[in-house]
Amino acid sequence: MSPSRPDMNLNHWLEARRAEVEATLAARLAESPVGDDPGRLVEAMRYSLLSPGKRLRPLLGLAAAAAVTPTPDRHVLVACSAVELVHAYSLVHDDLPAMDDDDFRRGRPSNHKVFGEATAILAGDALLTLAFEWIAEAGLAAERPADFARASLALAKGAGAAGMVRGQARDLGEPAPRNVTELERLHGEKTAALFRAAAEVGGAAAGAARGELEALRTFGWAYGVAFQHVDDLDDADHPHLATEAKRRIGALIDEAVAAARSLPYAEKDLLVTLAEGLRERALKPSL
Amino acid sequence: MSPSRPDMNLNHWLEARRAEVEATLAARLAESPVGDDPGRLVEAMRYSLLSPGKRLRPLLGLAAAAAVTPTPDRHVLVACSAVELVHAYSLVHDDLPAMDDDDFRRGRPSNHKVFGEATAILAGDALLTLAFEWIAEAGLAAERPADFARASLALAKGAGAAGMVRGQARDLGEPAPRNVTELERLHGEKTAALFRAAAEVGGAAAGAARGELEALRTFGWAYGVAFQHVDDLDDADHPHLATEAKRRIGALIDEAVAAARSLPYAEKDLLVTLAEGLRERALKPSL
Repeated sequence: MSPSRPDMNLNHWLEARRAEVEATLAARLAESPVGDDPGRLVEAMRYSLLSPGKRLRPLLGLAAAAAVTPTPDRHVLVACSAVELVHAYSLVHDDLPAMDDDDFRRGRPSNHKVFGEATAILAGDALLTLAFEWIAEAGLAAERPADFARASLALAKGAGAAGMVRGQARDLGEPAPRNVTELERLHGEKTAALFRAAAEVGGAAAGAARGELEALRTFGWAYGVAFQHVDDLDDADHPHLATEAKRRIGALIDEAVAAARSLPYAEKDLLVTLAEGLRERALKPSL
Repeated sequence: MSPSRPDMNLNHWLEARRAEVEATLAARLAESPVGDDPGRLVEAMRYSLLSPGKRLRPLLGLAAAAAVTPTPDRHVLVACSAVELVHAYSLVHDDLPAMDDDDFRRGRPSNHKVFGEATAILAGDALLTLAFEWIAEAGLAAERPADFARASLALAKGAGAAGMVRGQARDLGEPAPRNVTELERLHGEKTAALFRAAAEVGGAAAGAARGELEALRTFGWAYGVAFQHVDDLDDADHPHLATEAKRRIGALIDEAVAAARSLPYAEKDLLVTLAEGLRERALKPSL
């Protein structure tokens, strides 16, 4: 089942899907508004959404979809791309002066530095709202509204007060994590909740069975926490917990890989290879 | 069909439905989070959502539902209540220093004055997200996911970059309206888009046919623009346009009433009476 050069295959697959996600984002956000652009709202939305990015969450969703159905269609692509809208909104709001107060994002001035705070807040609001518009629309177009309702529900839970927003509130309002359990709770909320939602969105939109969705939830969470541990190694965040966190990465990736292997289609190797790539990145002496 | 004392009947009906909406909001927002409340996020959400309010948008949705089906169920109630989450989020974000910079709301300190800007931004984000969670959940529970997908789509369109957020961006970023056409475009986006969405949410969740939904859209938009004209009379906003705006109120209410009268059930009188109440309010010498 495993391809002989999985990383090569994965890279081809990822590049093809990434191009599809980019095209979806650019075409659909151009479509949404009509006529004038009061307050440069849509320009601000496009500035942040279409800035270069890895599109990791949509790709995770598409890999999840491919692991549970032989034929993910364009509606699944739209639903997975919607997760990027949520990611983009979260970056715009996180960068605001009242939040992390970051002037730069991905090497460019952050949204509020270009468009002002008011428009940045509104652009974030509109990106978040648009995500649910896309999923509802895709579910009706696909004539599988229950599958897409499950996707919408997973995205809302992952993004909201029990997930990503809660993590940001914890990060801003509570003392720094004192041990790895607290650190992983924070990583879970801030990062893994949306990765898990991405996997669920792809799986649910593709019609995954209940047990398959559970495996995708496990994969997304473990992958997301491991991802944030690796990111912390890069940035030397939480140095007092780094040694223990590094040890946790292997266990989390083992958990993610086991969950992926339980899925029915050969394309589950995409998920396995994504997770193993994270392990390799963690082992490299220079990141 | 018309009750002999329609205002009395309407008031009874409104009070009963308002109590149901209040109970739904309070119970469901208490349920959402578990355990601790990092950054006082949920407290901030409850502060703004559960402050005294007329709940006009959920009530409009419930009246719309009653006009198209004899038996709106509790899932319809949840979907209509979700519109109040969107309204509450919009007030929290509109009050922020970077936006309208209001220290008070409904006679109480605004959200960011109590909880700080960061938590206010996040509480708004979480309220908005929760609206789509409730609708998706209700659609799955009701086993009518297509109806609720239409509700979710209507809410997203009304709230987002083509509706309410666009109106706020226009209000902050563009010169004041120079004539009634421009004024009604602003009222339409800022206010009527969410009223229209409320009517659509109630109608769609109740299984309205396509023509019925179109009538509800017409009602919601005309009612919403008239509502904002009347509100402006109260606040003496746009004084240079007041005379012409006042003339427009009658025409808009006629349009709303005609749309309501086309609906199938006798409960359409609720919508008619709501609209006529607005006409009376506009005619009173002292508002």
